[in-house]
Amino acid sequence: MRTEKDSLGQMEIPSDALYGIHTLRSYNNFPKSGEKVNLHLIKAFFQVKLAAAETNYKCGLLLKEKYDPISEAIEELIHETDSCIKGDMSSIYEKVIVDPYQGGAGTSLNMNINEVIANTALEIAGRNYGDYDYIHPIDDVNMSQSTNDTFPTALKIASITLLRELQESFALLQNSLQKKEEEFKNILKLGRTQFQDAVPITLGQEFGAYAQAIARDRWRLYNAEERLRSVNLGGTAVGNSVSTTREYVLNVNSILKKITKLPVAKSEDLIDATQNMDVFVEVHGIVKAGAVSIIKICNDLRFMSSGPNGGIGEINLPPKQAGSSIMPGKVNPVILENAIQICELVKGHDVVISNIAGGGNLELNPFGPLLAHLFLKSLELLRESNRNLVENCIEGITANEERCKLNLINSSAVAASLISTFGYDTIQELVKYAYNNNIPFVKALMKSKLLSEDQIYEIISKDLGLNLE
Amino acid sequence: MRTEKDSLGQMEIPSDALYGIHTLRSYNNFPKSGEKVNLHLIKAFFQVKLAAAETNYKCGLLLKEKYDPISEAIEELIHETDSCIKGDMSSIYEKVIVDPYQGGAGTSLNMNINEVIANTALEIAGRNYGDYDYIHPIDDVNMSQSTNDTFPTALKIASITLLRELQESFALLQNSLQKKEEEFKNILKLGRTQFQDAVPITLGQEFGAYAQAIARDRWRLYNAEERLRSVNLGGTAVGNSVSTTREYVLNVNSILKKITKLPVAKSEDLIDATQNMDVFVEVHGIVKAGAVSIIKICNDLRFMSSGPNGGIGEINLPPKQAGSSIMPGKVNPVILENAIQICELVKGHDVVISNIAGGGNLELNPFGPLLAHLFLKSLELLRESNRNLVENCIEGITANEERCKLNLINSSAVAASLISTFGYDTIQELVKYAYNNNIPFVKALMKSKLLSEDQIYEIISKDLGLNLE
Amino acid sequence: MRTEKDSLGQMEIPSDALYGIHTLRSYNNFPKSGEKVNLHLIKAFFQVKLAAAETNYKCGLLLKEKYDPISEAIEELIHETDSCIKGDMSSIYEKVIVDPYQGGAGTSLNMNINEVIANTALEIAGRNYGDYDYIHPIDDVNMSQSTNDTFPTALKIASITLLRELQESFALLQNSLQKKEEEFKNILKLGRTQFQDAVPITLGQEFGAYAQAIARDRWRLYNAEERLRSVNLGGTAVGNSVSTTREYVLNVNSILKKITKLPVAKSEDLIDATQNMDVFVEVHGIVKAGAVSIIKICNDLRFMSSGPNGGIGEINLPPKQAGSSIMPGKVNPVILENAIQICELVKGHDVVISNIAGGGNLELNPFGPLLAHLFLKSLELLRESNRNLVENCIEGITANEERCKLNLINSSAVAASLISTFGYDTIQELVKYAYNNNIPFVKALMKSKLLSEDQIYEIISKDLGLNLE
Amino acid sequence: MRTEKDSLGQMEIPSDALYGIHTLRSYNNFPKSGEKVNLHLIKAFFQVKLAAAETNYKCGLLLKEKYDPISEAIEELIHETDSCIKGDMSSIYEKVIVDPYQGGAGTSLNMNINEVIANTALEIAGRNYGDYDYIHPIDDVNMSQSTNDTFPTALKIASITLLRELQESFALLQNSLQKKEEEFKNILKLGRTQFQDAVPITLGQEFGAYAQAIARDRWRLYNAEERLRSVNLGGTAVGNSVSTTREYVLNVNSILKKITKLPVAKSEDLIDATQNMDVFVEVHGIVKAGAVSIIKICNDLRFMSSGPNGGIGEINLPPKQAGSSIMPGKVNPVILENAIQICELVKGHDVVISNIAGGGNLELNPFGPLLAHLFLKSLELLRESNRNLVENCIEGITANEERCKLNLINSSAVAASLISTFGYDTIQELVKYAYNNNIPFVKALMKSKLLSEDQIYEIISKDLGLNLE
Repeated sequence: MRTEKDSLGQMEIPSDALYGIHTLRSYNNFPKSGEKVNLHLIKAFFQVKLAAAETNYKCGLLLKEKYDPISEAIEELIHETDSCIKGDMSSIYEKVIVDPYQGGAGTSLNMNINEVIANTALEIAGRNYGDYDYIHPIDDVNMSQSTNDTFPTALKIASITLLRELQESFALLQNSLQKKEEEFKNILKLGRTQFQDAVPITLGQEFGAYAQAIARDRWRLYNAEERLRSVNLGGTAVGNSVSTTREYVLNVNSILKKITKLPVAKSEDLIDATQNMDVFVEVHGIVKAGAVSIIKICNDLRFMSSGPNGGIGEINLPPKQAGSSIMPGKVNPVILENAIQICELVKGHDVVISNIAGGGNLELNPFGPLLAHLFLKSLELLRESNRNLVENCIEGITANEERCKLNLINSSAVAASLISTFGYDTIQELVKYAYNNNIPFVKALMKSKLLSEDQIYEIISKDLGLNLE
Repeated sequence: MRTEKDSLGQMEIPSDALYGIHTLRSYNNFPKSGEKVNLHLIKAFFQVKLAAAETNYKCGLLLKEKYDPISEAIEELIHETDSCIKGDMSSIYEKVIVDPYQGGAGTSLNMNINEVIANTALEIAGRNYGDYDYIHPIDDVNMSQSTNDTFPTALKIASITLLRELQESFALLQNSLQKKEEEFKNILKLGRTQFQDAVPITLGQEFGAYAQAIARDRWRLYNAEERLRSVNLGGTAVGNSVSTTREYVLNVNSILKKITKLPVAKSEDLIDATQNMDVFVEVHGIVKAGAVSIIKICNDLRFMSSGPNGGIGEINLPPKQAGSSIMPGKVNPVILENAIQICELVKGHDVVISNIAGGGNLELNPFGPLLAHLFLKSLELLRESNRNLVENCIEGITANEERCKLNLINSSAVAASLISTFGYDTIQELVKYAYNNNIPFVKALMKSKLLSEDQIYEIISKDLGLNLE
Repeated sequence: MRTEKDSLGQMEIPSDALYGIHTLRSYNNFPKSGEKVNLHLIKAFFQVKLAAAETNYKCGLLLKEKYDPISEAIEELIHETDSCIKGDMSSIYEKVIVDPYQGGAGTSLNMNINEVIANTALEIAGRNYGDYDYIHPIDDVNMSQSTNDTFPTALKIASITLLRELQESFALLQNSLQKKEEEFKNILKLGRTQFQDAVPITLGQEFGAYAQAIARDRWRLYNAEERLRSVNLGGTAVGNSVSTTREYVLNVNSILKKITKLPVAKSEDLIDATQNMDVFVEVHGIVKAGAVSIIKICNDLRFMSSGPNGGIGEINLPPKQAGSSIMPGKVNPVILENAIQICELVKGHDVVISNIAGGGNLELNPFGPLLAHLFLKSLELLRESNRNLVENCIEGITANEERCKLNLINSSAVAASLISTFGYDTIQELVKYAYNNNIPFVKALMKSKLLSEDQIYEIISKDLGLNLE
Repeated sequence: MRTEKDSLGQMEIPSDALYGIHTLRSYNNFPKSGEKVNLHLIKAFFQVKLAAAETNYKCGLLLKEKYDPISEAIEELIHETDSCIKGDMSSIYEKVIVDPYQGGAGTSLNMNINEVIANTALEIAGRNYGDYDYIHPIDDVNMSQSTNDTFPTALKIASITLLRELQESFALLQNSLQKKEEEFKNILKLGRTQFQDAVPITLGQEFGAYAQAIARDRWRLYNAEERLRSVNLGGTAVGNSVSTTREYVLNVNSILKKITKLPVAKSEDLIDATQNMDVFVEVHGIVKAGAVSIIKICNDLRFMSSGPNGGIGEINLPPKQAGSSIMPGKVNPVILENAIQICELVKGHDVVISNIAGGGNLELNPFGPLLAHLFLKSLELLRESNRNLVENCIEGITANEERCKLNLINSSAVAASLISTFGYDTIQELVKYAYNNNIPFVKALMKSKLLSEDQIYEIISKDLGLNLE
């Protein structure tokens, strides 16, 4: 055990702990939610610290003998976090231990990061953990900064990274839907509005429409990044740069840009940028629009794959796991159900994010930690869900062509296609006849000798612009 | 025009206006939403005023020569509002003109009510409108009261009335579903889990489960009334009864009970009752649970009535309007779609109500008007929707027995029923054979000569406890 | 009474009714919500009908003797609707009587519009109402169209119009905040984070940050219009243009553009455009972000104007109405409370819109009517609320300079500004001394003789970049 | 590695894995959310399995030589899970590895539980893992059961347990608030409505009102348990008990009651109980009402503790961690902010739960896993947050009596108390005089010589029914 002090008193810290007293207080202050701070947020926070250290050094605020071990420490920690992101390890969570639902606008996370950097740097400099006279978590590591500018900046960096990955997952989804559009382009089937038999369509057209909706989401996400690029580093506590220098403010964001290789830039109004979180409402609203599109598609696929024999049965989903212990051979649309659940969760996050973004007061929004956690969680969960949806479901979908034809021919949907040939009245007459005799419209039509079954397909296909042989 | 004064100055009021300066200021202060204050809230507000007047009179605070015209005026106004509720007229809205989304915790509505009563009473007393020296909207009509106790009390009275009507509409719904349960009790059909063919069930059992869910809602709503019975009349501004007498406080709520014939009683903690609106969150949560049940049922009915030929087609909805100008004979599940929309709106109201109920500050929640408006709107819309659902949809549903049988027999759902007779392995074998040869399970079964079609129905029926002849 | 027929049978229609049998069935089928179809949606629907009629005529599908009275009728009806929008009259609601929460994806509204146009045209042609052999609501007025392409197209046109008006209201709001930024630029005050005394700031900077947030909303709304420009007219029932001609499809959208003078264009994928409503989720998400910004600002203003004596009291809101009958002289922040309520309602609409947009099935979303109603309502209510907020609140705000100074000087916020001059340790010492002796930090500072009060203001002002004399 | 088979083929399983092929498929099928299945759900699932095994054994369906090791295995696993709940270990997550957001209505979790039990039992019986001919996960462990009855039953058991713990945490909260009510009963302060100075109140009355609101929540939660007691064990796949015996159905729930010591009972309608999740909507609605109460209270405490010097400053929160690196001595309301964040998350869960509960289809709701996860998470997070709120915040709150008095005396709130003594006109006059001369009302009053400061306090105290010495 080692002893550390802060303005509230002193505490015993485990001797090998990289974190310090502020972290431990926070750890004790908040209930354990069982969740962890997002790894991308941790990484971005380290990058922000690196940018600040480099700027402080270049502005002559931080001495070289402090800057060197600090920057080396941060680079080590970034490397470790990267490994955790890749899934190789989870060691960073022995150092960053504060709860994601922490109160305090992110001060706990900021201090946890500061203390871990300080102690890692002390180790590099051959000093003992806790020897803050040599390198201080606040005076040195947090120099020229505040939670209130580092936290939102780190959040935006993490968000941009994950938004790009999310966008790629929408691209994957779009591509897999387009492959199906091509594969199913000649499969005639029944189009339905309000679940009722409507007019003929092709299965390819349906998948094409799905691809188009997802393409729109992709495009939206691409555009959304721009909203996240404006950061408030240098604003310190409330955006008017109290406790730092003009030179620092003018330089730190371009150094951050260099370090992250992301197109971030200083916000035009740092006070506004410190207190408002509306960009996250806007961008999450766009993410949610994507979730809504996916829910619609997944529900369609569940409907069309229903049965397989006693339902619609127009498509087959790839079987991924046995669906029942009682019902032999039952296979359920589990991948779609998983995707829908993730999307509904994203919709729920949207409500929370709107509520807490509007809950800011005066110079700061104290609820940044919850917002950050849910925002990044939406991006990650939806990214994973999209990838999974492609790989474990969409790519393996096959058409049940026979059933598509059967459902079409049993319906009166072809009627609409024939109005231009035979007139509304003749067709209406046949529809009524079929209804009254409880036979499919096509049977009534064939009985009427107006057309043979082949001629019917031909007319429908022509009507849909298909060239079927 | 007549001139009226308040603490902010004076204004011209139309000479024939029953309302006064406070009302007109409010009318000018808030944008017109196009919606109107709920009639039940208006009526309940008049009842509250009557209770206060009677109590003031009995406690010797209000002179008989004022009490007489005031109480006569209020009874007239209650009668007029009742006629509006019945739909015979809408004249009360020429008197109560403030917007339902008004700021100010309901002061505008309270003052509008006070002024209308005062002027009506003046008319009765043979005085001119605006002659407030004779009968004053605040000193006399609002005596011993505050917006902060009259508004929540009126809201609870209106809520109890509408809650009872809502409960009755759930009873209607339950009954109509039970009639169908009985009507369809012998109709064997395919049971589906996750939209996949599962095990046999009867259509009656499905409607029985719907009825059971609705019965639960009805029971919940019945119990919910109790939460609304505790009112805060007499608490005045913040619940500690400033500006009234102990005698008034002890009597006003039982007089209110007598007037409304509703089992209301004074809250144990008037301060709590003045500042907290959590009971509306709780009760609306229960209303929302009912909306959720209805959404589930309506979606099932949309699925089962899909087709009619190219879909599931197991039930027929009564046709209510032509569904399409292009597609001849198309009939859509419009009543179900209407009910779902109303229920989704109720769910949306739930979010708003939770947000604003939690938005109270210290001694008062300033957002009562929005809460009241949405709360009562949920009750009324859902009541109307339920009645409509019964009359225009549920009662006219018929079963498509042939289709029910066909979907069942095409599926492998019967397999589960046969495991106990033939063993899991034999059945599993047949399921695979059917799947590989792309024939219905029952065909494979009949090919196997283990059972005839009639024997199959017999086994299923026995399994379901039916006694089919 | 006159008699009309449709596929379900015949009904008596009031002889002077402009609407017909489809409208009346719908009127009877759905419960009365007490709300009305949005006027902008009605107008846009007429414009869509005009575009279709002109295109049909130009493509030789509609004869001149029908086109002439139809187009004249529509222009008359547009003119009438315009007058209703201006608030001069409400006569259109005697003709368009269907409920906004109608089931059926908008077929009821479409048919109501068709029938009103047909009968108006018949009147112009000197025929009787209901003489549909001469001009038919479906065959002629609805020619080449479906609810499924006219409804979403009309909704987008109405949305663009209202979005522009909403954007203008944000511009007004931004301007009024900027005026206050300028007016209050030299008023030093206490900056607060997490409601705790933090560092000095100016009142002007705070209003500047508000203006900046609103400017961002304005910019977002400006960009959002582009999402709404792609329309699906010509897609008919499911987007593959069944029952119309190629020539019609290629021309109708540019004729619509000419008529509406809005930059609409044919969607690239009409099938996608018919079934998906995600653009409304996206755009409403942006509107909601604006609501969130306003909630934050209004809450700040409520906090800063609290008191006036026993609270924060840093700003004064213009008194708009007497706030209490019991508490003399009490004036409440009613305009802010109204604005917050409208914004919370908009947030609630966002939840409903996301839910129902994701509730589409296959070729269509049946819940368009609810989505349309809430979407347009959000735009209109927020527009009105913004205008009102500017006029009745922001413009009349004055600063309570004395109180601003007092709160600042009582706090230890100035400490942060002095760290760079006197060092963290000295300041920390003084903070502790002040705390222990329960005196304001500034008193401790003055006791310490380090600085006079004037010197303190000077340092703070310099720190904030002000040039106060 | 060992090889296992299911209906989809075979897979290699790590030789020491307690889970089997169904678990591994699920593990591979769904993206990793980073969250784990709730421990209470796991424990309850084991209890359900124990009840089923005992019933099967007693009904002669399961042989003693299988029942013995199975029941021993389950008891071991329950014991292990209990240790994990206590926080001593987390080993159960090496066995129960499926993701909480799994698709498939809980089949993955059910099979994971089945496989872990089977292999543990095999080990006890001295057999190899995977030797399912001896003890089979489905035929033996899952005998007479389905996911569709075990999952909802386990969820209800876990819910009752956690609901009781949540209720206790509300009791703690109520008690700590009541202690403060007593402690602060004589502290006169300013009561505020709409953030504006209103009438005098005591700090004790305010805390008393908080305690009352929380007492109401506690009572609601107590009553809510009853809704969760009706379980559907024995209903198997769709509620009509396919694949089990009547004897089993009649006995299993009372054996479950004995094992869990919870008052569960068989639902009256097993079909309804299998397909509907509305009770979770209802009960979570009640939990949400609690969250709403807490949000209100926490916001009040944040307001009253604002400052401490430049704000309201009427109460002091216990300092828990340093609030800022820049601003010396700043202490933030971090515990309140944490509690608010948890409550807002609970409100978000409510939206998701309502959406997915309404998303059931026909005989089953496929989204049970998400519902279960969020429902239990709400209960646990809120329980922890309440405990923390009590211990780390409420208990340490002290009153700033000086400030309470100052804010009161500066305001015109005392005016209301004096109306009855001096008349409305005299008081109104003084209020105006104070306002015009920008002095506190009490100063104007003292200037008027009507009363001394002591007399003023006396009048207020009497008015509030206090007996101050």
